[in-house]
This record gives sequence, C-alpha cells and structure tokens, in this order.
Amino acid sequence: MDERLKKQLEFVYELDKLKSINRQSYIADGSKHENDAEHSWHLALMCMLLSEHSNQEIDVLKTMSMVLIHDAVEIDAGDTYAYDENGNLSKREREVKAAERIFNLLPEEQGKKVRALWDEFEEKETPESKFANALDRLQPIILNHLTDGRAWREHGVKKSQVQNRNKNVGEASREFGELINQIIHFNVEKGNLIDE
Amino acid sequence: MDERLKKQLEFVYELDKLKSINRQSYIADGSKHENDAEHSWHLALMCMLLSEHSNQEIDVLKTMSMVLIHDAVEIDAGDTYAYDENGNLSKREREVKAAERIFNLLPEEQGKKVRALWDEFEEKETPESKFANALDRLQPIILNHLTDGRAWREHGVKKSQVQNRNKNVGEASREFGELINQIIHFNVEKGNLIDE
Repeated sequence: MDERLKKQLEFVYELDKLKSINRQSYIADGSKHENDAEHSWHLALMCMLLSEHSNQEIDVLKTMSMVLIHDAVEIDAGDTYAYDENGNLSKREREVKAAERIFNLLPEEQGKKVRALWDEFEEKETPESKFANALDRLQPIILNHLTDGRAWREHGVKKSQVQNRNKNVGEASREFGELINQIIHFNVEKGNLIDE
Repeated sequence: MDERLKKQLEFVYELDKLKSINRQSYIADGSKHENDAEHSWHLALMCMLLSEHSNQEIDVLKTMSMVLIHDAVEIDAGDTYAYDENGNLSKREREVKAAERIFNLLPEEQGKKVRALWDEFEEKETPESKFANALDRLQPIILNHLTDGRAWREHGVKKSQVQNRNKNVGEASREFGELINQIIHFNVEKGNLIDE
C-alpha cells in the first residue's frame, strides 16, 4: 500500500479508540454514558446545522474539522470531567504530550495541519475556535437537561460552576448563551444544580 | 427560545438515537459493536483526511455533511446488514418513510436541504456521493480486517458478496478500490471470507 495512505489510515484507526472513552454525560435517553466519538459526531452535526447562530462569520469546514479531532488527545490523556479540579490541574500537560504522539502518526505536513487545528481549538481565539468551544459547552448541557440533570446530580455540581464554565459562550453565540442561562435557571429550580 | 433554533435542536437531539443503533461491525479492538453515531464520526474524519484519494475533485464540506446524516433514517428503519438479502428488499421503502418524518423536524427550508443531501448520497451519482459511499464501504472493511474478519465469520460471508458490494469503490477512488481488493485477498487466505 501507498506509504502516505498507510500512515493516514493508521491515524484514522488509532482514533477508533475514542469509541471507548466514556464521558460523564449520559446520552439523551439515559441508557448509557456518551463516548468521545459519539460526542464529536454530535458536535460536527451541530456545526453543520447551527453555524448561522455564530455571532461572527465562520468557516464551517474548518470548524467541523476541529470538532472531529478535538478530543483525540484523550486517547492518551483520558477524559477529564469539567468539574474535576485536581484533574484539570494536570490536564494541559497530559494533553500536549498526547498531541505530540498522536498527530505525528499522520504524514508530516498533514500532521502539522491537524495539530494546528487542535492548537487553535485549545486557544479559543479565532471565530471558528470560539464557536467550536461553544458547541462543546452547549452539547453536554442539553444532554444534562434531557436526562433531568443526571450527571450534575451525581457529581453535586453547583450553579456557579456551570455559569463559570460557560461564561464565554455568549461571546461566540448570543442565542447559545441565552439558552444556557435558561437551562441553568430551569435546573436550579428543579434541584438538579446546587444553588449555594 | 427562538422557534427556528428550537426545531433545529429537536432534530439534533432526535439524532442522538443513532448512538444506540448498533451495526454488525465491531470496533477495532473487538470489544463491542460499533453504533451509527460512531460510524458516522469515523466517516467524517476519513473524509477530512482522505479526500485527496478521490478520483474526482470533491467539495469536502458537502461530503462531510452527507456522511454525518447518511444513517439518520435508521432511527425508524433500523440498521440493515449489508449481506441480509431479505432485509435489503424492504430497506428502501422503510428508509424513505423515515426520511419523510425525520428531516421534517428541521425548519422547512433547512429540512429540504438536508433531505436533498441524503437523496444525493443514496443516488450515488455525484463525485461527493460516490466518495461518501466509498468511505461507507471501506470503513467497515477495515474494521473487519482489524478484528480478524469477525463479523464476516459470524455471518458466513462469501468473497463474492464482498466483491459485489464493493465493485464501484474504484470508480470513486482507485487507491481505496485496490486496498479493498488486497484486504479481500488476505481474508480469503486466512479463511475469514468463504471462497466458494
């Protein structure tokens, strides 16, 4: 087989491991935890359908590509729960190390491009990155809402934690920011989020 | 909430059900069956990285969008195994009925656009559709190869069935067509495919 295609497929099938990395969120019917591959597909679908809600014009293909690979580093670094304070202290270091290994499986120039996409996602500076990160915030919030706050209740999550984590969403999309505020309000009323 | 965003999110979360629709393929480490959401993510990733192997130039965003929604109809119609002859007789009718319901959850003009993408995928006429279908063929073949032909062995699949199902892949991508031939040859030698 062509050496280039071989390297590309090695990367593609290394990423198959994302199908076994579970997140804290449950899927909408509550039957199981969501995994990283399912989550990434859901973000790409949202990107395809909801890009009109970005405050700034975005390159949809670039944003979609970003969300498809944004969790690749979790193959080595594992999924760190948003509200795990200790885990989040070491997260960046673990993920950068993972990025070095994983994106280097690709042919060199393609690996650099995909790594640059991941860096861009992490830096949250460009309109595409801001929108991709807003989707990455909104999607689990809706899953939490649809499962009556299950993951929040299991972890005793506080209203202020969710507000703090999502404080920049409105900068990427006014509608998403408002929606998140409504969902937080509703779930505090229902007792799914702790109002300290 | 804005009526338009509400409809879009209803569609996005209706498609969450794809995370529970299992396919016959196993994921690469053999630990579980793959589901439709994982499969669709994998195709979109391949689309992002392998579009250079298309014989004809393609619109990558369009192709990626196509693969993200290509299995949506299975929410109502279920997954029909490629080598289930009876199931495939009624497949088209079941899937068209599903398409009517599911794509109509979206705001009208967006629903029409997404339905048109699904129709294009099904018709296999355009370069984008041919490439998307080639990915949809190649991806489970590689998973079968990586799991020592497990799903093929479980269903007693014949070499000629796989050859017949994949006969048009080379029309979309010469490299994919050659790769599939090599994989078939290897798995016939190993006894994973029946050489009648």
